[in-house]
Amino acid sequence: METWKAIRSRRNVRQFDGRPIAEDDLDRILEAGRRAPSAVNRQPWDFVVVTGRERLGELAKVWRFSHVADSAATIAIVAERLEDRRARELQFFDLGQATMAMMIAAADLGIGSGHSVVEDEERARELLGYPAARFCAFLLPLGYPAGRPLFPLRSPHRRAFDDVVHRNRW
Amino acid sequence: METWKAIRSRRNVRQFDGRPIAEDDLDRILEAGRRAPSAVNRQPWDFVVVTGRERLGELAKVWRFSHVADSAATIAIVAERLEDRRARELQFFDLGQATMAMMIAAADLGIGSGHSVVEDEERARELLGYPAARFCAFLLPLGYPAGRPLFPLRSPHRRAFDDVVHRNRW
Repeated sequence: METWKAIRSRRNVRQFDGRPIAEDDLDRILEAGRRAPSAVNRQPWDFVVVTGRERLGELAKVWRFSHVADSAATIAIVAERLEDRRARELQFFDLGQATMAMMIAAADLGIGSGHSVVEDEERARELLGYPAARFCAFLLPLGYPAGRPLFPLRSPHRRAFDDVVHRNRW
Repeated sequence: METWKAIRSRRNVRQFDGRPIAEDDLDRILEAGRRAPSAVNRQPWDFVVVTGRERLGELAKVWRFSHVADSAATIAIVAERLEDRRARELQFFDLGQATMAMMIAAADLGIGSGHSVVEDEERARELLGYPAARFCAFLLPLGYPAGRPLFPLRSPHRRAFDDVVHRNRW
């Protein structure tokens, strides 16, 4: 799909049709995240990709409104615990970059995504097995949308362009 | 360009060939950022887009190694000052998402980008004129690469796929 079409087609998807994602497609989505830029190329992320209905059902319990259970796959974005405030800011910025790259790569394949936070960190760690010095920052559930497929949104629910964009000066 | 090609072609570009960016192309890049998702759709960003050699030269002074001066345009990503730690984390994550969307949209057009932090916040505010309750989180210089154009990178300088990706469990 053309890039501009994929970018406009990405929307939050939280209801999935149950179809699995082909392994190559899932790997491509993960590869998009791996390639993301980061401050001094630190790549402050690990991706634990969870598939299988039963495991996804377990993982769904880490957030109260989770659509993880019905996803075809969910990528847990795991990062190091950092104390320094500035270091954390840059880390979250970089995690945002990697996540967006994965969501656009998914949209290109007609695959929807809608990330969620983690409320029950203990349960997430127990299930995913990452080291204690790390935490699960976000979950990225993926799947083919139930109902209407992805298509370019004409009027996304966003602030107006001229409200967001300032020319040369605020 | 195909999405997967654009994602693989994005690389940090810090030397530009001096060609201007067409206004429609610049607007498309900004539109990609405007459409980015954010926590409870807060859209915690404003984009001040700076063009013109003289203004870019002034803006370049906010960071010591700035390639802003030679860019065709630089987007200043401005956000609200937040005190709460969790709110800041989510804000930076969302800024990362918007920035990545803009960089992929740029790569699709053959336009390079390489974001930088802001060291001299006072100077940035003076130049860009945003309110005191806000700060300039990042600068995103844009331009056509000097030397080799964008092309899909076969071996980006990143951790190995199998080091980053864990299947079902760490």
